[in-house]
Amino acid sequence: MNNNNSSNHSLGASGNHELTLAVRDYECDLQGVVNNSVYMNYLEHARHEYLKSRGVDFAEVTASGIHLVVVKAELEYRASLTSGDDFSVRTRVEQEGRLKFVFLQEILRDQDQSLMLIARITTTALNERGRPFYPEKLVEKFI
Amino acid sequence: MNNNNSSNHSLGASGNHELTLAVRDYECDLQGVVNNSVYMNYLEHARHEYLKSRGVDFAEVTASGIHLVVVKAELEYRASLTSGDDFSVRTRVEQEGRLKFVFLQEILRDQDQSLMLIARITTTALNERGRPFYPEKLVEKFI
Amino acid sequence: MNNNNSSNHSLGASGNHELTLAVRDYECDLQGVVNNSVYMNYLEHARHEYLKSRGVDFAEVTASGIHLVVVKAELEYRASLTSGDDFSVRTRVEQEGRLKFVFLQEILRDQDQSLMLIARITTTALNERGRPFYPEKLVEKFI
Amino acid sequence: MNNNNSSNHSLGASGNHELTLAVRDYECDLQGVVNNSVYMNYLEHARHEYLKSRGVDFAEVTASGIHLVVVKAELEYRASLTSGDDFSVRTRVEQEGRLKFVFLQEILRDQDQSLMLIARITTTALNERGRPFYPEKLVEKFI
Repeated sequence: MNNNNSSNHSLGASGNHELTLAVRDYECDLQGVVNNSVYMNYLEHARHEYLKSRGVDFAEVTASGIHLVVVKAELEYRASLTSGDDFSVRTRVEQEGRLKFVFLQEILRDQDQSLMLIARITTTALNERGRPFYPEKLVEKFI
Repeated sequence: MNNNNSSNHSLGASGNHELTLAVRDYECDLQGVVNNSVYMNYLEHARHEYLKSRGVDFAEVTASGIHLVVVKAELEYRASLTSGDDFSVRTRVEQEGRLKFVFLQEILRDQDQSLMLIARITTTALNERGRPFYPEKLVEKFI
Repeated sequence: MNNNNSSNHSLGASGNHELTLAVRDYECDLQGVVNNSVYMNYLEHARHEYLKSRGVDFAEVTASGIHLVVVKAELEYRASLTSGDDFSVRTRVEQEGRLKFVFLQEILRDQDQSLMLIARITTTALNERGRPFYPEKLVEKFI
Repeated sequence: MNNNNSSNHSLGASGNHELTLAVRDYECDLQGVVNNSVYMNYLEHARHEYLKSRGVDFAEVTASGIHLVVVKAELEYRASLTSGDDFSVRTRVEQEGRLKFVFLQEILRDQDQSLMLIARITTTALNERGRPFYPEKLVEKFI
């Protein structure tokens, strides 16, 4: 088995969750770089892997009737990933007020550790009637 | 309202269902053309619109516990759609044996009516236990 | 021809560009609603259609060596689009400082005109060496 | 570093190239499983990794004016991958006639080694004028 390290994760020195991925060519667009929308995919996948590392399975939570939803996404694009790049997504979470959970995420290119994107993703939990609520048992795990 | 005809559908002379769409730039890849996987999206969307035109709503059917699934996909790529192209997806359905429904689909570029792709998508219906069955009430509508 | 209005565009009373689209089932995820990343696709497509309506072809601009890039994306998710929904994307542009062009975009669900998403997408133009510059001839067209 | 084996690759006993990946939740659709079109993404990525393992970089080949294109795709869907699944894509290549290169690919779910999909992807090389040709130096590397 030739381990190419292209999708490992770890906890960095800072306590951040870290997921290492590789650009796939179909993610690149006409401009020859990863399309802007694809970073949202990377960030979502990293959040779900963060939750999984804390014992929270997103698909199970959804099936149980709790909807974890994004209410705001703020992304700063610093530079573009392209074909052949490996990169890391760093994720940590902070609570904001009683009902919001903010994922602070960064994407770094592996070859030179340069910062490609900074994101601040604000989420909340909705119950089966679509109302925000405080999912205490979940929150204990992931904050 | 400036009607640009970019997503209309109709029944052609042949009795085929026809859906007209436009290439979106994010669908194009490094090679500057629509990525091969995106044609699967176009074809799926056209099949669901075909079903809807016959009174079958895919999301409702799924929610009711019936899974309409693809068991085989055969695609011949003749030429590549690219940024700025409008195109039509033509769809008709044939029953194969007792349990299979074959969608015969073609994609034509609007500007010159040239054939870009031919597809033969074989589907079946699975019940809640994952077994193929004959969804009689549905079939009456869409065949 | 059965015009289903699912991809028309127009200039609204406000002078906004407006593009009408329909949710495609493959855009929906495990939660049964349009995945968060897909709104970035809708917004990009609407920006490119806005530019096209002003005589600016994104693919041609890219091929000419000018890269129009997103430097910041701010999205507020108000409610979720789902299977069967038709919706409109409204787009207008403001200049910010000398080198930034901000696209103010909104997504409204057609059936009840409710606001699903508000976005503020900050863009700039890069020359062939990747440096921000002022593409005067382009800007005259789209601002 | 907590190696979760989710994107390694190797040469199996059979001489096949093997790429191990994990399902990402955004790849799942309304039916709760990986959308049919996403397998095309997996297969493309595995083909490009296969080529890279033989010293052929797809983006560089494209930039050099050679277009490696899919002319036919035949996929048999046996069972559905879903959220949480790890899987392997096995790839080998055969020449067909003088100008076609057929990628024989399989996707296996890691947990039970069950076969999820079998694919036969026929490709050819186009020169800058869009004509099929025999890219001798490339072929020596990847066949």
